Amino acid sequence: MSTTYRVTGMSCGGCAKSVESAIKALAADAKISIDVAQAAVTVDGATEAQVKQAVDEAGFGFEGKAA
Amino acid sequence: MSTTYRVTGMSCGGCAKSVESAIKALAADAKISIDVAQAAVTVDGATEAQVKQAVDEAGFGFEGKAA
Repeated sequence: MSTTYRVTGMSCGGCAKSVESAIKALAADAKISIDVAQAAVTVDGATEAQVKQAVDEAGFGFEGKAA
Repeated sequence: MSTTYRVTGMSCGGCAKSVESAIKALAADAKISIDVAQAAVTVDGATEAQVKQAVDEAGFGFEGKAA
């Protein structure tokens, strides 16, 4: 089951790739899709704590589950 | 003493911030300056291995010391 989180600060495809890589560094098998314009990161196969840690370390803003 | 590395794939300020954060996650006291247009990351206070690991995990391309 996938969960969508709100992640602020991404402004291009490089940012999105960075968030994806940071999550995969903590959860190698996670499936991730990112919509930069919507500040949305959808993840299957990683915990919320892993996503938060990855986003924090990558320097973006983790704002929890998307409404 | 600072060292400048070549890091590819950064295309905006968010990318640069991501690389900086990833390095600081491994070397909290590092001093970092980044020139996106030049693909240049200048670091004081982290080893080359730390910079490489951080850049790899952040999904950018580490190409060693700048010429």
